Amino acid sequence: MPHSPKVAAGRGYLAIPGPSVVPEAVLNAMHRPAPNIYAGELPDLMPKLVEDLKRVARTSGHVAIYIANGHGVWEAGLSNVIAPGEKVLVLATGFFGHGWAGMASGIGAEVDILDFGKAATIDLERLAEALKADADQQIKAVLAVHVDTSSSIRNDIAAVRAVLDEVDHPALLMVDCIASLACEVFEMDAWGVDVMVAGCQKGLMVPPGMGFVFFNEKAANARASMTRVSRYWDWTPRAHAQAFYEFWNGTAPTHHVYGLRTALDMIRAEGIEAVWSRHETLARAIWAACDAWAEGGMLKMNVQNHTLRSHAVTALHLEAPLATDLREWTSQKLGLTLGIGLGMVEPDDPNWHGFFRLGHMGHTNGHMIMGLLGGIEAGMKALDIPHGPDGLSAAAEVIGGG
Amino acid sequence: MPHSPKVAAGRGYLAIPGPSVVPEAVLNAMHRPAPNIYAGELPDLMPKLVEDLKRVARTSGHVAIYIANGHGVWEAGLSNVIAPGEKVLVLATGFFGHGWAGMASGIGAEVDILDFGKAATIDLERLAEALKADADQQIKAVLAVHVDTSSSIRNDIAAVRAVLDEVDHPALLMVDCIASLACEVFEMDAWGVDVMVAGCQKGLMVPPGMGFVFFNEKAANARASMTRVSRYWDWTPRAHAQAFYEFWNGTAPTHHVYGLRTALDMIRAEGIEAVWSRHETLARAIWAACDAWAEGGMLKMNVQNHTLRSHAVTALHLEAPLATDLREWTSQKLGLTLGIGLGMVEPDDPNWHGFFRLGHMGHTNGHMIMGLLGGIEAGMKALDIPHGPDGLSAAAEVIGGG
Amino acid sequence: MPHSPKVAAGRGYLAIPGPSVVPEAVLNAMHRPAPNIYAGELPDLMPKLVEDLKRVARTSGHVAIYIANGHGVWEAGLSNVIAPGEKVLVLATGFFGHGWAGMASGIGAEVDILDFGKAATIDLERLAEALKADADQQIKAVLAVHVDTSSSIRNDIAAVRAVLDEVDHPALLMVDCIASLACEVFEMDAWGVDVMVAGCQKGLMVPPGMGFVFFNEKAANARASMTRVSRYWDWTPRAHAQAFYEFWNGTAPTHHVYGLRTALDMIRAEGIEAVWSRHETLARAIWAACDAWAEGGMLKMNVQNHTLRSHAVTALHLEAPLATDLREWTSQKLGLTLGIGLGMVEPDDPNWHGFFRLGHMGHTNGHMIMGLLGGIEAGMKALDIPHGPDGLSAAAEVIGGG
Amino acid sequence: MPHSPKVAAGRGYLAIPGPSVVPEAVLNAMHRPAPNIYAGELPDLMPKLVEDLKRVARTSGHVAIYIANGHGVWEAGLSNVIAPGEKVLVLATGFFGHGWAGMASGIGAEVDILDFGKAATIDLERLAEALKADADQQIKAVLAVHVDTSSSIRNDIAAVRAVLDEVDHPALLMVDCIASLACEVFEMDAWGVDVMVAGCQKGLMVPPGMGFVFFNEKAANARASMTRVSRYWDWTPRAHAQAFYEFWNGTAPTHHVYGLRTALDMIRAEGIEAVWSRHETLARAIWAACDAWAEGGMLKMNVQNHTLRSHAVTALHLEAPLATDLREWTSQKLGLTLGIGLGMVEPDDPNWHGFFRLGHMGHTNGHMIMGLLGGIEAGMKALDIPHGPDGLSAAAEVIGGG
Repeated sequence: MPHSPKVAAGRGYLAIPGPSVVPEAVLNAMHRPAPNIYAGELPDLMPKLVEDLKRVARTSGHVAIYIANGHGVWEAGLSNVIAPGEKVLVLATGFFGHGWAGMASGIGAEVDILDFGKAATIDLERLAEALKADADQQIKAVLAVHVDTSSSIRNDIAAVRAVLDEVDHPALLMVDCIASLACEVFEMDAWGVDVMVAGCQKGLMVPPGMGFVFFNEKAANARASMTRVSRYWDWTPRAHAQAFYEFWNGTAPTHHVYGLRTALDMIRAEGIEAVWSRHETLARAIWAACDAWAEGGMLKMNVQNHTLRSHAVTALHLEAPLATDLREWTSQKLGLTLGIGLGMVEPDDPNWHGFFRLGHMGHTNGHMIMGLLGGIEAGMKALDIPHGPDGLSAAAEVIGGG
Repeated sequence: MPHSPKVAAGRGYLAIPGPSVVPEAVLNAMHRPAPNIYAGELPDLMPKLVEDLKRVARTSGHVAIYIANGHGVWEAGLSNVIAPGEKVLVLATGFFGHGWAGMASGIGAEVDILDFGKAATIDLERLAEALKADADQQIKAVLAVHVDTSSSIRNDIAAVRAVLDEVDHPALLMVDCIASLACEVFEMDAWGVDVMVAGCQKGLMVPPGMGFVFFNEKAANARASMTRVSRYWDWTPRAHAQAFYEFWNGTAPTHHVYGLRTALDMIRAEGIEAVWSRHETLARAIWAACDAWAEGGMLKMNVQNHTLRSHAVTALHLEAPLATDLREWTSQKLGLTLGIGLGMVEPDDPNWHGFFRLGHMGHTNGHMIMGLLGGIEAGMKALDIPHGPDGLSAAAEVIGGG
Repeated sequence: MPHSPKVAAGRGYLAIPGPSVVPEAVLNAMHRPAPNIYAGELPDLMPKLVEDLKRVARTSGHVAIYIANGHGVWEAGLSNVIAPGEKVLVLATGFFGHGWAGMASGIGAEVDILDFGKAATIDLERLAEALKADADQQIKAVLAVHVDTSSSIRNDIAAVRAVLDEVDHPALLMVDCIASLACEVFEMDAWGVDVMVAGCQKGLMVPPGMGFVFFNEKAANARASMTRVSRYWDWTPRAHAQAFYEFWNGTAPTHHVYGLRTALDMIRAEGIEAVWSRHETLARAIWAACDAWAEGGMLKMNVQNHTLRSHAVTALHLEAPLATDLREWTSQKLGLTLGIGLGMVEPDDPNWHGFFRLGHMGHTNGHMIMGLLGGIEAGMKALDIPHGPDGLSAAAEVIGGG
Repeated sequence: MPHSPKVAAGRGYLAIPGPSVVPEAVLNAMHRPAPNIYAGELPDLMPKLVEDLKRVARTSGHVAIYIANGHGVWEAGLSNVIAPGEKVLVLATGFFGHGWAGMASGIGAEVDILDFGKAATIDLERLAEALKADADQQIKAVLAVHVDTSSSIRNDIAAVRAVLDEVDHPALLMVDCIASLACEVFEMDAWGVDVMVAGCQKGLMVPPGMGFVFFNEKAANARASMTRVSRYWDWTPRAHAQAFYEFWNGTAPTHHVYGLRTALDMIRAEGIEAVWSRHETLARAIWAACDAWAEGGMLKMNVQNHTLRSHAVTALHLEAPLATDLREWTSQKLGLTLGIGLGMVEPDDPNWHGFFRLGHMGHTNGHMIMGLLGGIEAGMKALDIPHGPDGLSAAAEVIGGG
């Protein structure tokens, strides 16, 4: 590591693509004595909590809330509609598509994967072909990831639905919005999504520990025809809960519920469209910097096409081991933690040190993103990584409204 | 409600049998910015966390940690060793025995229940008979609840193991220690327990959101012979995790991990034997008060035999609707929340208002228990509930070492 | 120390007569990033804060807020109306009366003290004599302590005013309500108090760090005729502040302001009369226990006359060294901290260990006081201190409304 | 305000020159139940706290700690050595020099002011002349501000001492380090400072509420010859305290003490020289940006000479009302609060809106400063304020070690 000044002793900034920065207000809401779970404020807040969650997901359907992480709701969502031996088609645009496929295998599903690589979106023609080839309509569900956190590709979910409709295939459309909910424009009902899974620790700004499965009537019907769904994963009692413990199949995650309540209040106060718009502006600022740095420099964005870039996460490349060097430099010298690359190469491949990611989801704003970008440019200068000169000004231009 | 002074505006005291009082130190440990999950302090603390968890459970076996509540680890434990169609024998001494049986049905197990009522412990002879009657040893696991939170019966788990051994039955012994871990004496290895499940929100003093499945080699072998275990519930990768995400099948419950670390530090500082002893003394103080009040009074303890009473929870009876009246009085007038009765009658039965429970698990001490008992006596006086006169002095005598 | 069980590992309970128990809500309000001091929420909340403070003090006069403790506002109050060489008459009913007298000497006042001992209230006849003896009315102020925290005597302030009026003496009536504000009935305007000083750390439930000087027009006129008042102590700019920094003579105690705001919200929600009434009920419960223990026992209350006993603090006697032994026992064995005696004998006198005090001010309620008393009785039993048998039941009777 | 995107909903950043950003660890240390003030952890931590405070001030002298703000310790320091009618010479290099002079007048001192304007340092020749002109050495103390927070001038305190020594004048050298302690190099003993005052809310990173007066033997002797010092301000008992209450002249600011303990731990862990160096690097980054923006732009730094610029605060000029426009833009659009100008013109002068300041003291690091600067450039772009193009890169160059 080059000799450069250590100016790290201030507020830490975790700019990884989740868990994201937790607002002080959320932490404060979670700093409380154990509440009563049988009556009073906590049970009483559930109906509005459910309503506000559905508002964020833009659905008039149902939501089941789980004490579980993203992998948990991957399994939960599948367990309600896919029995062992039934077939799913996974549209993989990065590491997490394969991850969900693995969970499907784990519950005994027969899994077909269409793999679109690590820097491209879903090829709708290949999807149409695959659906048409499924002559007896054995595919029970098509699984897609809205934003794959590894590649930072954002897929066009409405277009996937359009293909299903065009070829008149009855498969459920199941979507992973773990990295995108409350960051990117998402319209569950308007886009024809049947099942959507998400967690609390990214756009929803709560420490990890809760996951959500949203579903519509078509999915509820699929659930109704299942022979058996395990009780913890069964979404029906959760989605139709009256008593507090029914929402949770047992004990509620009391402090997380208060955290989520506060986070939803913040989102409501800002307005979900304003939240989406903020993420877009901040993402465009990051792109402006990265595109400028790329000119005559070494940094490369994983996704070249602007329309396919996520507004919540950005995957980047610097020749190994410079990506790792940069991450270590910003962490040790500035108190700024960048995300590791994921899914591009195996961890024991020396090129593993050529990838990194930025998280810009949830509780982020203009000065934070300028600090993130400024820290990266400082690191490139410290490490003599060639870069175009005008990245920071270009980002400031975007944030300034240019 | 009688006219009595309202003196509630001070610290609330949640004396329900879980979630239990959360120590300030645990809440403080959870009040922190989102930490890095890829490297540094948080991943590094896992080996010792696992070691300390096993120390509390008195086992040299394995532990898998889940983002889940007690119902979740009920399902997790079962899912690793019981395939659909396989048989389990449930020893029910209260509501939660039946609850676990229900989760077993939910994963497709064939469930036999020996029901010992709502105020008695496991009848070892009936158990022996049932095991002997299982001539072809189809019972794959015997499920017992160490302390049933509804009845406050504490079962003798070592004796259950002795019966299994005497009749030479190979079934796994699976035990629910959700209400008892870190409250009551429990010796997983010495008592021959194969699988034990627990949560973080009672004796471990952390807000709900994590559960634990401890298992030994015999259980690991049973797991190894399973055709399929869903990935979220599979305990093997969790128990043998190297990378941080492997412990959690995905994203860790970052803030809970810090909370648990602090709680385990507190337990270690006090010493697990001292923790057990404290719970016993406080329980004896409660019994002394309740037994004294019962003399010539209306209050009745659900469990008469001292050796069968839990040190963590106490189930009580007052003629309906006095139990509910008392709970409401202490809550509104004193800021003291008592637990509702559970599992004694159906919620729509008018006698439902004749049962209540006290939680005395985890972060409780001498002045808290005296405050709990003092509040109950004040309520009995306010509501003209007849009671023996010397309950509080008798409790003070126990706490004073008498 | 006798061998008795250690059951301390739960919530600590600081039952000293101030600083008092801080509500979670106040601590949470203080757990926040540094706020802007030039504009926005914090400066904007001052007018209502001042209004609510005056409401608690029952005055339509003025209040100056200081970053200072009780000793600081003792000095502040005096500095605005007493010049070096001017005379004050101090009515001492305990340690703190003498303490205030010392502060007066420190600013150069000529100080006369009427000392009424350590367990009696102000003798109004002696006061009248002293005022009459002041033929040329050189006494510029009469200083009285509403509740002396050392002796737990509560003085009748309205009666002091009546004496001043009867003898037609123009001296200012200055009252220390540090231990009583928001605990005991106090009517600044109705009782004719000219200057009143208080702190934030007792009835107002905020960690120490702020003090208050309330004053009326008569006191303002006295201030106006002073040649010089130091700028930090000058109450005029603080009481008439427009800009935020004027309230504080410089930088505000930002986090304390938020804490106080929350505490005043709690008081307003409960109602100041209800707050007074709660303190009275809890005090009567303590007296009932202590009086019962005293029968045939060793414990003695310092103040025998009920009408002179404070509702916020209670001074007690146990033959030395038993008071200290008891304090140490409850602290080590139960996690319950009792207050040391103060001002009864010198600290190096062996009888120093014969005095202790209970704080019951601010954020206290029925179960806390029962826990406090239960802890004391447990300690008396452990230490073989004779005591009447029915103390706890007597206290429960009071709290139950009897 | 121009139409530009609102991207404010993330962490607030208060970049005013004090109160400064409070570390999470400090807030957490203050989030605790009320502690015992008579024995135990809190009283026991005082000796080391005092030692660590003196270490930060680089003195083997004494320190008195006050519950008070900066104005309070201004008065405290003066009150111990200056009697009414005695003379002080104030060296003013900004608003706060005049402020201290005002406090001196308030205690009755005869005050002479040498005013060096709002953008220049102390003129040592004028100082020497003034001292020589004081033939009968009536000047009892020379008062200087190390860093004047309004002008951001940093004065050479060692040089002031050298002048005093050269002209052989016995006056005490009293220095205000409120804005500089634990930010700028300061050597109390080596520089011959007799009295130094500071607060907790800037370099020491604790919410406002405590102040410090450091003094050496010469100052102690001056105190000893005073006829009277008020008890609250008297530094002697505080500096020689044995009992806990003696440190505070009464009740301690319990929670602030814990906050300060944690802040001093952080400083000790980083090392005071490293703290100074960090502030210097970050300040140089700010200057690099501002100097670059100034080229062909409108922004002007108040202090042109690098060697006179503070490392903790930076005063800037933009033609009115652009400074205010910029502050409002960054606050509303980015969640970034810049400091108002102070002392340059009267608040009712329209040019008041032409000044602003940046605080970069205490808990700040590389990414925060890049975020601060990035936010300013975004604002200049949004508001069409001309500025040189390379400010952000220049700052990144400094932080990168260039």
